[in-house]
Amino acid sequence: MKNLLVGQSGGPTAVINASLYGVVKVALASPEIGHVYGMVNGIEGMLQDHTLDLGESLSEEDLELLKLTPAAYLGSCRYKLPESLTDAFYETIFEKFRRMEIGYFLYIGGNDSMDTVSKLSRYAAHHGSDIRFIGIPKTIDNDLIQTDHTPGYASAAKYVAASVREIALDASVYQQKAVTIVELMGRHAGWLTAASALARKFEGDNPVLIYLPEADFELEQFAKDLKAALEKQNSVVVCVSEGISDASGTFICEYGDEAMIDNFGHKMLTGCGKVLENFIRHRFGVKVRSVELNVNQRCSGMLASETDITEAALAGQKGVEAALAGETGRMVAFERVQAEPYRMECRLVDVNEVCNQEKKVPLEWITGNGSDVGQAFLDYARPLIKGEPKRPMEDGIPKYLYRKG
Amino acid sequence: MKNLLVGQSGGPTAVINASLYGVVKVALASPEIGHVYGMVNGIEGMLQDHTLDLGESLSEEDLELLKLTPAAYLGSCRYKLPESLTDAFYETIFEKFRRMEIGYFLYIGGNDSMDTVSKLSRYAAHHGSDIRFIGIPKTIDNDLIQTDHTPGYASAAKYVAASVREIALDASVYQQKAVTIVELMGRHAGWLTAASALARKFEGDNPVLIYLPEADFELEQFAKDLKAALEKQNSVVVCVSEGISDASGTFICEYGDEAMIDNFGHKMLTGCGKVLENFIRHRFGVKVRSVELNVNQRCSGMLASETDITEAALAGQKGVEAALAGETGRMVAFERVQAEPYRMECRLVDVNEVCNQEKKVPLEWITGNGSDVGQAFLDYARPLIKGEPKRPMEDGIPKYLYRKG
Repeated sequence: MKNLLVGQSGGPTAVINASLYGVVKVALASPEIGHVYGMVNGIEGMLQDHTLDLGESLSEEDLELLKLTPAAYLGSCRYKLPESLTDAFYETIFEKFRRMEIGYFLYIGGNDSMDTVSKLSRYAAHHGSDIRFIGIPKTIDNDLIQTDHTPGYASAAKYVAASVREIALDASVYQQKAVTIVELMGRHAGWLTAASALARKFEGDNPVLIYLPEADFELEQFAKDLKAALEKQNSVVVCVSEGISDASGTFICEYGDEAMIDNFGHKMLTGCGKVLENFIRHRFGVKVRSVELNVNQRCSGMLASETDITEAALAGQKGVEAALAGETGRMVAFERVQAEPYRMECRLVDVNEVCNQEKKVPLEWITGNGSDVGQAFLDYARPLIKGEPKRPMEDGIPKYLYRKG
Repeated sequence: MKNLLVGQSGGPTAVINASLYGVVKVALASPEIGHVYGMVNGIEGMLQDHTLDLGESLSEEDLELLKLTPAAYLGSCRYKLPESLTDAFYETIFEKFRRMEIGYFLYIGGNDSMDTVSKLSRYAAHHGSDIRFIGIPKTIDNDLIQTDHTPGYASAAKYVAASVREIALDASVYQQKAVTIVELMGRHAGWLTAASALARKFEGDNPVLIYLPEADFELEQFAKDLKAALEKQNSVVVCVSEGISDASGTFICEYGDEAMIDNFGHKMLTGCGKVLENFIRHRFGVKVRSVELNVNQRCSGMLASETDITEAALAGQKGVEAALAGETGRMVAFERVQAEPYRMECRLVDVNEVCNQEKKVPLEWITGNGSDVGQAFLDYARPLIKGEPKRPMEDGIPKYLYRKG
């Protein structure tokens, strides 16, 4: 009887722990599986032999709380595996797997994590290892291909939609002309920014302008769009993705000179909202403020979507079932089998085809000459954000599960 | 039979509409009161004769939704009444009151709004008007004197505490040393920043450092505090009030103003969070990010406190009752008659003594050499943030009431 090893990797989401819940719940109930181990801080922690026996450390009650706890219970990492499968790293890590008698390896993460699953499964195939490697998708960015959507996106989208509705209400209380810029996460894909359209209650409601990184952003066109909007109403809310860039490929935030590079060589974008705030203040002379929803849009459990939580847990469960059925090098994916009423089914896709690719918002969903999203997006996103779980509270704030050790 | 006029003024809160609900509900049920009018955009809108007959425009169902809708349903203003009571403004506005047969004037707001109530009631007294002027307190800043706390504070505090708990979870997922700065509202009073202490679950939990404007903030002392914290744990969350200043009286955010010039050559105004982020990056060389909770901390209904909503509605009700009982120039205030279990009673205070003053966090509640708040604050704030209302949702996000006209 082999053991199961599960880890979390990449940025936190509101439901990455719901997938962990799904994995642990079904694994503990599977007679074919011995211990259920969690890697603390993903593959990076595994290298340091930092693991937990989750069957021992999590009570039934802990598990239910885990399902509703945001961030990443096991801790996470951003660790890029060596490109060459002959690198000593692989021998080291497989030796650790062997010592722990691992038969099933489940990794919950986004693009880079699927790259990890791809490499480990290819190494296993080359070296005759029978460990099965399965990826469970998660990312608020919704940018994984071969899946209708990604666990984590819906809860972030729901938080964005609700927060933007509240910002729009707040911004509308005075009579003065005023512009509010809301900057949302999404470097290359505008899924989260598009979700701000879900905040609208009626035709012409805020946010009246929405800019995604998929379309070129031109300051002069923006000025025209904004002028027209300010002629129609006093309070204009504009939602922009952190990754908007102009036709020359220059990120708008770079005009504020605040670009940095993270460990993966990605530009760390910050501040296009601030740059636009400054631009508007000087060009229009109106009251303007910029709001960055920042990390709370990815890590808040306040408005986690029940649909998202359920689907994330299901993805974890299906991952374990796939591994038990002998699958390896696969990612659990979602297929929308019916639009209305919404119905989703899980399937398995080749993880090698998923990793290191990005799914963008289809250009035909972007309307208003690049300043809005259309009905196709709303129909896509609305079913995903539905439902709210009953959330346990302690002393007036959400109760979450904390890891010990 | 005289009519009642109610208005909202100053910044939005999560429960200013609950006070409006309290006023309208009891006023509509009072046989002594004729029409219940709402000023749109407060006293500024009144000058433009922009009012609504709330008995006509709000259904029973609307009223219940109003109670749970954040921001300011009637719209707001920041309009300072002339200091001299002989200014023509007063004659104009009282003529409008006369034409609308106003007998009761209720104004929901903070410091400046109480100043409005003070001036109008003093003018009335000098000119033999029998209109009764009553103030209903609201402010997320909690800085009104002569009241234990102010409606609006508790919901903002609850949102801050929950958001900071989620930020702390999010920030703890990686192994690397990292600092997260959370900048919170409060220019002169640190009540909201202090609320971040409610996020802690255990001894030593984040946020480990909390700085209020009531204590001098010195960069070198901060660097020492931070160094000590980073030696104990990998992830350090620091909460700061937007209004922290050093012993010379210079706001920390002012240290960023000259450094931040955008590519268009314009000065970029920035908060103290960003200034500290840059300071830490250069001094410590660790991963650092700053998060500004921004307007959502004041306008979000997501985590409105049931206690706050109930008390805000009660304040509105008591205001109408006071006016009917012949009181004028008074503000409804809260008295904590029992600490544990918490019990609050309303009383009336002289609005002239309240306006244009500020209640600060008592210095003896500030601990850790200015870097924390103690048990006295926690005991004060905890009962206020308790309880969550059942919130109606539509299409996956909170349903709120929108004004027509």
